[in-house]
Amino acid sequence: MRRAESFSDGVFAVAITVLVFNLLPIAKRGITGHELWQQAWPQYAGYVVSFLTIGIMWLNHHTVLSHVRKVDRITLVLNLALLMTVVAVPFPTALVADNLGTGPDDPGAKLATVTYGLVMIVMSIAFSGLWAYLSSHATRLGGRPSVASVQLWVRFSAGGLGYVIGVLLAAFWRPAVALALYGAVAVYYMFEHLPEPSSEADSTSQDQLLES
Amino acid sequence: MRRAESFSDGVFAVAITVLVFNLLPIAKRGITGHELWQQAWPQYAGYVVSFLTIGIMWLNHHTVLSHVRKVDRITLVLNLALLMTVVAVPFPTALVADNLGTGPDDPGAKLATVTYGLVMIVMSIAFSGLWAYLSSHATRLGGRPSVASVQLWVRFSAGGLGYVIGVLLAAFWRPAVALALYGAVAVYYMFEHLPEPSSEADSTSQDQLLES
Amino acid sequence: MRRAESFSDGVFAVAITVLVFNLLPIAKRGITGHELWQQAWPQYAGYVVSFLTIGIMWLNHHTVLSHVRKVDRITLVLNLALLMTVVAVPFPTALVADNLGTGPDDPGAKLATVTYGLVMIVMSIAFSGLWAYLSSHATRLGGRPSVASVQLWVRFSAGGLGYVIGVLLAAFWRPAVALALYGAVAVYYMFEHLPEPSSEADSTSQDQLLES
Amino acid sequence: MRRAESFSDGVFAVAITVLVFNLLPIAKRGITGHELWQQAWPQYAGYVVSFLTIGIMWLNHHTVLSHVRKVDRITLVLNLALLMTVVAVPFPTALVADNLGTGPDDPGAKLATVTYGLVMIVMSIAFSGLWAYLSSHATRLGGRPSVASVQLWVRFSAGGLGYVIGVLLAAFWRPAVALALYGAVAVYYMFEHLPEPSSEADSTSQDQLLES
Repeated sequence: MRRAESFSDGVFAVAITVLVFNLLPIAKRGITGHELWQQAWPQYAGYVVSFLTIGIMWLNHHTVLSHVRKVDRITLVLNLALLMTVVAVPFPTALVADNLGTGPDDPGAKLATVTYGLVMIVMSIAFSGLWAYLSSHATRLGGRPSVASVQLWVRFSAGGLGYVIGVLLAAFWRPAVALALYGAVAVYYMFEHLPEPSSEADSTSQDQLLES
Repeated sequence: MRRAESFSDGVFAVAITVLVFNLLPIAKRGITGHELWQQAWPQYAGYVVSFLTIGIMWLNHHTVLSHVRKVDRITLVLNLALLMTVVAVPFPTALVADNLGTGPDDPGAKLATVTYGLVMIVMSIAFSGLWAYLSSHATRLGGRPSVASVQLWVRFSAGGLGYVIGVLLAAFWRPAVALALYGAVAVYYMFEHLPEPSSEADSTSQDQLLES
Repeated sequence: MRRAESFSDGVFAVAITVLVFNLLPIAKRGITGHELWQQAWPQYAGYVVSFLTIGIMWLNHHTVLSHVRKVDRITLVLNLALLMTVVAVPFPTALVADNLGTGPDDPGAKLATVTYGLVMIVMSIAFSGLWAYLSSHATRLGGRPSVASVQLWVRFSAGGLGYVIGVLLAAFWRPAVALALYGAVAVYYMFEHLPEPSSEADSTSQDQLLES
Repeated sequence: MRRAESFSDGVFAVAITVLVFNLLPIAKRGITGHELWQQAWPQYAGYVVSFLTIGIMWLNHHTVLSHVRKVDRITLVLNLALLMTVVAVPFPTALVADNLGTGPDDPGAKLATVTYGLVMIVMSIAFSGLWAYLSSHATRLGGRPSVASVQLWVRFSAGGLGYVIGVLLAAFWRPAVALALYGAVAVYYMFEHLPEPSSEADSTSQDQLLES
């Protein structure tokens, strides 16, 4: 368990830091104010959205694993599948960063933001798979019986729906709006999150604290 | 022991994340659907196979170290030798990603997949060396006497045999089939794994849990 | 709490190591003594200044978090905002490394060092935000009531002022002097640091030890 | 203390993994057997020597820190100075990898291996500084009084002498021999290492075990 968390934390930490490699080519390209600020905005936007997305995914990963006290082989394999999608995030980010600046009707911009959204959807599915497994095996894995209600599932799935809408926006309307929506989903998950394990009754309160 | 695990986890985490650097050039190359999906399949295939391979190697590394409670200098040196092969994995992955798309009879594709398989074989040997040392010194290192039976060795070695067959397939038949076999070996090790240390008698059961 | 530290440590560790990627192109460029030593000094200077800056930021992050025993959602989000600026540091470092060698009046050199200073200022603000939140919620988060006096705030803010002066120096006088000042700020924070949590009365002494 | 180790382990882990980036360009250059094996030997040699060097440095860092139970600000700053040299190792490695293949009399090969040796010497000095500080403050930092004898210092310094000889060999005779010597120093440190903290009397024995 400790090493599963340690390895996952390491992968999240590296994946989130790799995002800066999408910024480094800006330094090579030139150094006028125009190049640095106007022209490079898709790089900055992609950096912020992907950073928030991986960061929030780490927060939720943290929460989900804190519900159990042991992990089995299936948990580790599901976790690996989730990490495989997290590590891939810098790739669609690079696609978006390199293609979004060309204008709303450019097919490259559409394809890039659609691909970005599809990777997000696959990542959400991988996360839901891990969560569903841990929830349904919580007792066996040393946790309390799952507290996930239908209402909770609905609220949590709302975020995933955001990615689907984003893909449609990217394909049929404006790629830049889709990217903004992907960022909004990350912000949504900052506040609409999974319950922490808690000894108090109100385990869905946002005020719980994580013990050291 | 704690820091040996922490360092190893870090190395595994970085090595597995470095694999995404093989995907990033796709974003530079172009952004038509053809370029993104048809032409780049060796990159995606290499990413998935190498990710699963390093991930499973991490799982087994975890298991092997969990059998002992202390490590000595020889363990650390053997561990370093194993990590040296793990860190190298992105290199043959890049070879495969850049050369497999040229067709089954291309000498570059053959050489790339043969090299990939040879690195896998060296990694398997390094892992077996670490395992053999820990098994034969388990009592001294604070573990229980080794439970590795001949049968277990045979089943475990079957995976290594897969890499040898893969090298032959790559050299004399089809490189892409060899890559698929390398991936199949990783999937095999997900299920046919080393026993966890366990207080129950049936220590080869797949149902053990890793305590927090 | 443990995983928040572990994740943060991982991000700091990767971000600080990514700085070496600004040195690697020197090896590609050529290998005369002139190229290696005279011409590449902005790369080395940028490496040292950014390494010290991230390193000291890690030390202070460590100190700030050690004042509390639990973290809540807001802490994690503020921490993520701080990490987003830390991870970005290799980008202005690359800007400086690629443009400072062109001479004191080059607009590229000015723009690069101004950008560097602005990123430092944003990072300082993010750090102050985290510190202010933890200080004002210390009791609730399991820490002692905050000991931060007005005097302490003044001394600590002096470092942030250094960045502002650096930006002005870079814009209106000499970019290289601004970079030296950014380095001096990092050295300043080595000695003028936040108090460690301590059971002794003199909690601002530089002699406290961090327990294992 | 725990976080100082965790951060250091992370930095060592990333720095050692970054070495693979010196191999990746081989995959871009071509894929004939000649290019892959004959021509690229400096890349492989540099990878192995630097991997062993960083790995052994990690082992010794581990040992040195295990002698104390607390760290103070000076320890953290000295540790940061050591890490700054460790993180830089991929840079002289890239220099060697890109220039050693041109022949023994090439000035680029000489300059590259001399630079490599100089970085090693700086790293050794930084390590010695950390060790000297921890040894002389062991009691205050919760460790036992230092057991370092004059004899131990002599044996340990022998490795540092190897780097000096390597620099002279690189400058005046054959760069490839110097690289082999750098590798030999790493192997030397595998066996001629610092004493582990131990409750037994023979604390210089190579048989001590690191408790979990």
